[in-house]
Amino acid sequence: MGEFELLALLRERLPAAGPRVRLGSGDDAAVTVPGGAVATSVDALVEGVHFRRETASPRQIGRKAIATALSDLAAMGAAPGEAYVWLGAPAGMDEAELLEVGEGLAAVAAATGTTIAGGDLTRAPVLSLAVTVTGHAPNPQDFVTRGGARPGDALVVTGALGGAAAGLALLEDPALAASAIDAATAAALRTRQLDPTPRLAAGRALAAAGATAMIDLSDGLAGDAGHVAAASGALLAIDAEALPLAPGVAAVAAAAARDPLELAAAGGEDYELLTALPLAAVASARAALAALGTPLTAIGKVEEMDDGRPRAELRRRGGEAVPTRGFDQLAPRRPR
Amino acid sequence: MGEFELLALLRERLPAAGPRVRLGSGDDAAVTVPGGAVATSVDALVEGVHFRRETASPRQIGRKAIATALSDLAAMGAAPGEAYVWLGAPAGMDEAELLEVGEGLAAVAAATGTTIAGGDLTRAPVLSLAVTVTGHAPNPQDFVTRGGARPGDALVVTGALGGAAAGLALLEDPALAASAIDAATAAALRTRQLDPTPRLAAGRALAAAGATAMIDLSDGLAGDAGHVAAASGALLAIDAEALPLAPGVAAVAAAAARDPLELAAAGGEDYELLTALPLAAVASARAALAALGTPLTAIGKVEEMDDGRPRAELRRRGGEAVPTRGFDQLAPRRPR
Repeated sequence: MGEFELLALLRERLPAAGPRVRLGSGDDAAVTVPGGAVATSVDALVEGVHFRRETASPRQIGRKAIATALSDLAAMGAAPGEAYVWLGAPAGMDEAELLEVGEGLAAVAAATGTTIAGGDLTRAPVLSLAVTVTGHAPNPQDFVTRGGARPGDALVVTGALGGAAAGLALLEDPALAASAIDAATAAALRTRQLDPTPRLAAGRALAAAGATAMIDLSDGLAGDAGHVAAASGALLAIDAEALPLAPGVAAVAAAAARDPLELAAAGGEDYELLTALPLAAVASARAALAALGTPLTAIGKVEEMDDGRPRAELRRRGGEAVPTRGFDQLAPRRPR
Repeated sequence: MGEFELLALLRERLPAAGPRVRLGSGDDAAVTVPGGAVATSVDALVEGVHFRRETASPRQIGRKAIATALSDLAAMGAAPGEAYVWLGAPAGMDEAELLEVGEGLAAVAAATGTTIAGGDLTRAPVLSLAVTVTGHAPNPQDFVTRGGARPGDALVVTGALGGAAAGLALLEDPALAASAIDAATAAALRTRQLDPTPRLAAGRALAAAGATAMIDLSDGLAGDAGHVAAASGALLAIDAEALPLAPGVAAVAAAAARDPLELAAAGGEDYELLTALPLAAVASARAALAALGTPLTAIGKVEEMDDGRPRAELRRRGGEAVPTRGFDQLAPRRPR
């Protein structure tokens, strides 16, 4: 099968185009009429760097590639719009598997109301995807950046942390699961790693509730809180013992002789939202998220910088700082 | 150097943001206010598939990655707006070279009025770029698709053909140049391959002149004309002997014992524009392009399908069809 036949089969699997799309995939470019402000982000997923084909199915790889890109839109409080996908296909991968990658992309697109409006298909040495997504709002100031956290704001986080890192530990050492937790909990943790859910509705609700700054937790809470601190020019003081751990994280950490706080604060890939918002807005934000079935936990506050140095500090209640670092895409490490 | 330090150095090299950009690179997403219709396209460039680092400099690789993406906007008649770049960096590549890739991207962005508004930097097994570009027009119908060619329209092509394929032949067999052509011509052909120029101003001028269909020649004239034929439901009859050959193409073809028409019609990567437009509009289109210094050559016409089968036919004046095929991204072949 050649490029154009495979593209035609991939296109058949895409959901119907949304209202902003005037011309979808198949011409030199897609045509949209956004009608307001647009948030755009690009995210890549590369075999041997971000996933292994031994542990992730083609469908999961497609799902994760678009989900992680959409997570950036969630962190802006944007309504998802369109996605543009480069798919790099290794020569040894069969077409049925490539179509499954496309089906994974299409399933998340359909579930989130995203139109896959364009793409590019080429050879690559390993399975690779780069997904550019656009999200929408009436006005640019409707989007929530990383830069608006103010002293006195509360810091809240959606959902639960550490699950993706615990899932990765289970994938890398399957024996760990049997010794630590029941099968259903282990499966849920692996899903957190392999098939994350972008918090799109929660992001919009937090924006509407008055969020002053927001970021999605891709690199790990400690590193990502540091990005908010730097952009906002503030100190983010986080109560390490308040972090909501995903079920099974403590048991996996114990079995692996690791600190559960390390999984929750530096493990990365939970794709929850860390949000700063005025104290007075916390109750209404929590109620709005409860209506979506998404827990919201207060984990700290924004403070004045005591020494002019913006930073995030994770403190145990005894005052001891938790040493953590965020994920560095270029740091040497083994593939996941 | 880590991801964030390198990203900061890359950002320093970018041109200033254009008027639609409200928030550039560095947050979860960039924010723009397009204010009209948007054309969006994604294109990837992968080491060992689309280029070799032995023959292309890091700066040329950066330039080509964004130029080929912008060429798709040229083919829509769009004014370039923003670019979003994924850069996949192999572990063995040094930072100075990665910054040169960034400088190549930035130089073409600056020259074309494109804002590099966002990006992603990760590890990849080989140097890889995926570039998503957005172009603008007041209304969606201002863009020229592949689908509007009508029987009676003239077919015209910008610039000259075969140069990129001849340049590739010279890169793969440097001895060919000495035997066939002078050094300056050889250098110009290699530049056509390594550092193509998107025909952005010509694309807008052709759209304004009344182009009914347009495509950029990335896969080769024969294949790309076939895409226009399929989208328009028409027969594209092309006079093979009218094709404008780039200087040196005939000599390189002779030295390599290849048909110059094969280089011009099936070689690909010339990034010229093939355009259908009403006969009455050809003279004004040619005048508008002459003002830009871009030749425009009439190479055929759009005809009714005699048998209901949309297709492009390249014919020699004796009537003999030229066998050609377009570039298939998934076809087995050696790397360039």
